[in-house]
Amino acid sequence: MIRILGIDPGSQRTGIGVIDVAADGRCSYVHAQALVLLGAADFPSRLGLLCEGLEALLEQWQPQQVAIETVFMDKSAMSALKLGHARGAALATVVRRRLPVSEYEPRVIKQSLVGRGAADKAQVQHMVRLLLKLPDTRLQADAADALAVALTHAHMGATAARSGLTTDQLRRRRG
Amino acid sequence: MIRILGIDPGSQRTGIGVIDVAADGRCSYVHAQALVLLGAADFPSRLGLLCEGLEALLEQWQPQQVAIETVFMDKSAMSALKLGHARGAALATVVRRRLPVSEYEPRVIKQSLVGRGAADKAQVQHMVRLLLKLPDTRLQADAADALAVALTHAHMGATAARSGLTTDQLRRRRG
Repeated sequence: MIRILGIDPGSQRTGIGVIDVAADGRCSYVHAQALVLLGAADFPSRLGLLCEGLEALLEQWQPQQVAIETVFMDKSAMSALKLGHARGAALATVVRRRLPVSEYEPRVIKQSLVGRGAADKAQVQHMVRLLLKLPDTRLQADAADALAVALTHAHMGATAARSGLTTDQLRRRRG
Repeated sequence: MIRILGIDPGSQRTGIGVIDVAADGRCSYVHAQALVLLGAADFPSRLGLLCEGLEALLEQWQPQQVAIETVFMDKSAMSALKLGHARGAALATVVRRRLPVSEYEPRVIKQSLVGRGAADKAQVQHMVRLLLKLPDTRLQADAADALAVALTHAHMGATAARSGLTTDQLRRRRG
């Protein structure tokens, strides 16, 4: 079993989602929440809160792998820049714990979960609930996006590569 | 006396400059270097190197205040985004040590050191050498820029505000 922590970075709210991937590829829900950063006194303090919150969750859930969403560059330059700051702070926190981190574009996450890169947020969230058997749970949007990137990482066979197994070896193991 | 650590953030090289500001406002050179991040295996690892290097220097030089350059938004969206990641990682490292951090635009740094916001890099570096009495020292460009942001912070009277003194009180003290 491999535990994956997914991150949907943001400078106002950062989503965190934790799943377990069994040897047969089945994924199960472990934890999801949004780190709300708006209460901080200024922008640098928000980044500090993000790192402290993320570090506490890495410590609590002990994932073996981390997956994070990339920045969607169609946003305004200023909002992409703020998002870049949040991603940089999050990535540094993960890397300093010597955890392997994989990055996925929003388009790839949608493709992996819904089957097309142009899917909307509601469709992605619907698939997250379905795949993790959370039909009745209210999921905060950022938390759902974080679970989506963790599921994408699981679906891409990336867990196999990271665990030193090739996708072929894993397939044989499953079979 | 107040010790200021200046940061010129970059995802390839991050400049660090440390100065002391005496009660009469005179600034003296303490340390300057560039953290070279290009050797890292990937982009996230560079951010990890940045944080580790910065943390070691904060520990070694024990500044009371930190000053950092903002991102110049005229750069390409992609380079601004990378720079944002580096700044976010650096800011989070500083804030987590509970150090006050001030941010200065490149235009303000040039205005403060050379007297006009459109000054070129060579003029800024010349003034850094002059103000810190480093005429013969070879200064790495990023290290010089980091000293420039630290000097700007000193010149803006910002050290006074941060130390709980008003600029007026400081002026009286100096007089």
